[in-house]
Amino acid sequence: MSEPALEFFENPAPERDYEIVHTAHEFTSLCPKTGQPDFGRIVFTYVPDRRCVELKSLKLYLQSFRTKGVFYEALVNEILALLVREMAPRRLEVRGEFTVRGGLSTVVVARHPDGGGPA
Amino acid sequence: MSEPALEFFENPAPERDYEIVHTAHEFTSLCPKTGQPDFGRIVFTYVPDRRCVELKSLKLYLQSFRTKGVFYEALVNEILALLVREMAPRRLEVRGEFTVRGGLSTVVVARHPDGGGPA
Amino acid sequence: MSEPALEFFENPAPERDYEIVHTAHEFTSLCPKTGQPDFGRIVFTYVPDRRCVELKSLKLYLQSFRTKGVFYEALVNEILALLVREMAPRRLEVRGEFTVRGGLSTVVVARHPDGGGPA
Amino acid sequence: MSEPALEFFENPAPERDYEIVHTAHEFTSLCPKTGQPDFGRIVFTYVPDRRCVELKSLKLYLQSFRTKGVFYEALVNEILALLVREMAPRRLEVRGEFTVRGGLSTVVVARHPDGGGPA
Amino acid sequence: MSEPALEFFENPAPERDYEIVHTAHEFTSLCPKTGQPDFGRIVFTYVPDRRCVELKSLKLYLQSFRTKGVFYEALVNEILALLVREMAPRRLEVRGEFTVRGGLSTVVVARHPDGGGPA
Amino acid sequence: MSEPALEFFENPAPERDYEIVHTAHEFTSLCPKTGQPDFGRIVFTYVPDRRCVELKSLKLYLQSFRTKGVFYEALVNEILALLVREMAPRRLEVRGEFTVRGGLSTVVVARHPDGGGPA
Amino acid sequence: MSEPALEFFENPAPERDYEIVHTAHEFTSLCPKTGQPDFGRIVFTYVPDRRCVELKSLKLYLQSFRTKGVFYEALVNEILALLVREMAPRRLEVRGEFTVRGGLSTVVVARHPDGGGPA
Amino acid sequence: MSEPALEFFENPAPERDYEIVHTAHEFTSLCPKTGQPDFGRIVFTYVPDRRCVELKSLKLYLQSFRTKGVFYEALVNEILALLVREMAPRRLEVRGEFTVRGGLSTVVVARHPDGGGPA
Amino acid sequence: MSEPALEFFENPAPERDYEIVHTAHEFTSLCPKTGQPDFGRIVFTYVPDRRCVELKSLKLYLQSFRTKGVFYEALVNEILALLVREMAPRRLEVRGEFTVRGGLSTVVVARHPDGGGPA
Amino acid sequence: MSEPALEFFENPAPERDYEIVHTAHEFTSLCPKTGQPDFGRIVFTYVPDRRCVELKSLKLYLQSFRTKGVFYEALVNEILALLVREMAPRRLEVRGEFTVRGGLSTVVVARHPDGGGPA
Repeated sequence: MSEPALEFFENPAPERDYEIVHTAHEFTSLCPKTGQPDFGRIVFTYVPDRRCVELKSLKLYLQSFRTKGVFYEALVNEILALLVREMAPRRLEVRGEFTVRGGLSTVVVARHPDGGGPA
Repeated sequence: MSEPALEFFENPAPERDYEIVHTAHEFTSLCPKTGQPDFGRIVFTYVPDRRCVELKSLKLYLQSFRTKGVFYEALVNEILALLVREMAPRRLEVRGEFTVRGGLSTVVVARHPDGGGPA
Repeated sequence: MSEPALEFFENPAPERDYEIVHTAHEFTSLCPKTGQPDFGRIVFTYVPDRRCVELKSLKLYLQSFRTKGVFYEALVNEILALLVREMAPRRLEVRGEFTVRGGLSTVVVARHPDGGGPA
Repeated sequence: MSEPALEFFENPAPERDYEIVHTAHEFTSLCPKTGQPDFGRIVFTYVPDRRCVELKSLKLYLQSFRTKGVFYEALVNEILALLVREMAPRRLEVRGEFTVRGGLSTVVVARHPDGGGPA
Repeated sequence: MSEPALEFFENPAPERDYEIVHTAHEFTSLCPKTGQPDFGRIVFTYVPDRRCVELKSLKLYLQSFRTKGVFYEALVNEILALLVREMAPRRLEVRGEFTVRGGLSTVVVARHPDGGGPA
Repeated sequence: MSEPALEFFENPAPERDYEIVHTAHEFTSLCPKTGQPDFGRIVFTYVPDRRCVELKSLKLYLQSFRTKGVFYEALVNEILALLVREMAPRRLEVRGEFTVRGGLSTVVVARHPDGGGPA
Repeated sequence: MSEPALEFFENPAPERDYEIVHTAHEFTSLCPKTGQPDFGRIVFTYVPDRRCVELKSLKLYLQSFRTKGVFYEALVNEILALLVREMAPRRLEVRGEFTVRGGLSTVVVARHPDGGGPA
Repeated sequence: MSEPALEFFENPAPERDYEIVHTAHEFTSLCPKTGQPDFGRIVFTYVPDRRCVELKSLKLYLQSFRTKGVFYEALVNEILALLVREMAPRRLEVRGEFTVRGGLSTVVVARHPDGGGPA
Repeated sequence: MSEPALEFFENPAPERDYEIVHTAHEFTSLCPKTGQPDFGRIVFTYVPDRRCVELKSLKLYLQSFRTKGVFYEALVNEILALLVREMAPRRLEVRGEFTVRGGLSTVVVARHPDGGGPA
Repeated sequence: MSEPALEFFENPAPERDYEIVHTAHEFTSLCPKTGQPDFGRIVFTYVPDRRCVELKSLKLYLQSFRTKGVFYEALVNEILALLVREMAPRRLEVRGEFTVRGGLSTVVVARHPDGGGPA
């Protein structure tokens, strides 16, 4: 099944650098090794350029991971790459916070442009 | 209906850069797509120049959004622009924190002057 | 697909009434009307008679709701009925706590025997 | 404007007394004296008999208070009376928790049947 | 100076026993021994009979303690007695929670009718 | 050194059963086995009869344990016995909550009259 | 290896029913199926008769589970039985609270005498 | 009435830059427009030079605002100016945090030397 | 017994600097002086180069400390050195947070490269 | 009485700058003016050079303040000076956090080398 298309709307204030933070509190995917479900939160922090991501399409895109097997590290980098390609933000950070497995919890944080520090 | 006029009083300490933070805990507006109510907090952080905003007029101005349909991103930028135009602060940050919709919560933060970092 | 079988082990202290509480922190099912995912916690509180439920089989049973469309009220009563039938506990409470949808969150609590108060 | 009709669905487990709790986190009405907005949470705790209240219709019904002037005490009793009349629950508690006004916060709790203690 | 008169309004639902809780978060009085200010919260929980206390008059009444020297124990009992006399509630609890003095914090709770347990 | 005398004042509302709770947040004594300091909180909950304990004298009395070696269980029972003897309350609970030693924390709760449940 | 002997001291106030609560915050044992470590807290609540358990011996006794494989349900009942046999308390509750395994956390609570409710 | 004099003691370590933070948790003044009481916390953060402020005199000075009508912005700047003049600290920040009025809470922060960032 | 080998997988996004944080919530080792168990959390924050550490092997490696006597300071530095040697991260911080012993809790934080600030 | 000698052990990783944080949660001293006990926490954050402070000797040293009258500001600077002299750390911060007295709480923070910012 192809994944849901992200939709965008025109940035209402492109003359200014400002931040938008979307926090998806109910993320779930599958562990590619065991097939067991993983759970967590995904936090998007970005400075828009021409386009802003439409919330409902973002929700549907994240739901497409419900049946996908993917490692935490790959997942965060894949989401970052897609949003950079389709939205071309001035800055973007994607942060995945995943619940405890075997007594360990995990956070993965990637940023665009690389080395740019927190968005 | 025209929106309530903001009122201002003279800065009692213009010789010094100092910060004022007002947090409106009970903000509500309407979603322009669905007409459904949105809820959140608006936080103003500013360094006054000649004028400070009068609290009661700020409250009434924010209440005028109760019947307005407006997107989060436009809302925060519109409030910033109005306060910059009418109060001419040395620095200003407007931060809108909105509650969960479809499992996602949203924060929008804009600053004047642009790129100035947190006020 | 048939749902995973619950497994049981012999109660190690049947001579005494004592309580066992299992809290499943990462429950997800589907809304039967919209097909959208629901999220929550399921809390089991019981006094075992002859059998105790085996934790891993309980986890797998709960995961079978990941692709099922079911209303909150039906879900909690269905889980209660299954456990009563297969485990025959002296007392059992099933409590489902579901996250915010449209600004409302929901809790459903059912008990066996009926009217028995908290287990 | 007439207020939105509540809708109901058939109780899936009428053979058993069980509890349903709906918490509306984003309630707002108007103060009948000053016209100023009031904010709070409304918590419904009930044991259904034949019918359960449908969540979306409950949300729309609560939104109808957005433009109504009503005192806290009258509001909670009015909601209780409507639900008793239309849903005929075995037990029902309506709890309104309202934010600070003039340094005082207020909670109002009414129950059916009267004097029945917490539902 | 005579203390501000409490005002009352007619109970909108006298046919039913229901609870009203008012919490005054910003109470201050004076210590009768040292003249130093005391701070705390006063919580009123009552079941109204014919009359409910009007919030603004309650706020002004509590403010009259700002310049009064009174012990915690006397204060709570005095407020209870006044409300019983003027409002004649079916049940009433007055709870004063006072901040730390010399490493000790204090709570005083009185109820009408006596021995009636929490309202 | 003899321990500081507790002082009392006349109950301002002896016609009514009401509760007074004093929490001493900064209690310290010595371990009688090791001489090492122990730390905790002591909570007094009582219904006065003729006399109420004066706060400052209670503080000084508790400070006398700073140099005393005493076990938790003996300490709480000793304080209860003293207050029962000198104040003759209608009901009294003394609760000592002590910080972690060797990975274990301890609470001791004694009540007068015996078996009377929480004051 | 034989397990460490519990030690006891004489109850300093046997004339009165009073409660002692010891919370062991750093409990660890092994899962008998996988050999993996389990972690949790053990809470003892008791009313002593002639004897009180000595804290250090209790700590050493609990440490003996560090290398033992035992199920949660058996563990709590075994500890309860030992303390009932050796200490003969008037009442005793043993509560084990264990951390998340596979997304589920578990609590087991046993009491002596059976059915006696919380100690 | 003239306001209480602040008192100072000699800095015990003038050879070093170090920070002192005093937080007054129970501040109250009057609103100059309505005469209604305001409540909040005042936080002093400073690096002393020759003199440190004596705590009790600071408490009494802050209590003098109990009967004064003053705006938040003026209040914080007035306290800063007084302490700079009388104590001549190397750095000083005064932060006033005021409770909710009409749904808005306010913080005012001033620093000496101006623009020096947090003390 | 030789300690369990750490395993690694190929970094899925080596073209970018991004952070991975693993928090082991259930760490336990032994005190080398007393033989008593120590408890705490170990937090790994790193920017991978070619390799990422595999979670299950990290868990097993940390479990090998369950029977080892080692000081906090040595432990954190030993873990850092091993991961630097075997994983060659671009940056790495190891943070050990240990529970209260004798009223003192301890945190030890080491970083690679040295002096590099938080990873 | 001479104060207990601090003891030190050799830094196990002197080739690297790393941080050690010890938090003493149960500090108590005496007020030199009133003789009344003071309570608080002392937090040590340091980068060791050749020597690390031994925990038990640090605990005993801090206990020696139990019978000493000393002002907060002097206390923190005295402890800093002693540790600098005897341990010669690369960096050190001593932070004393003291509980409420007369409605004000106090924090004092000193660092070596002076002006070095947080250790």
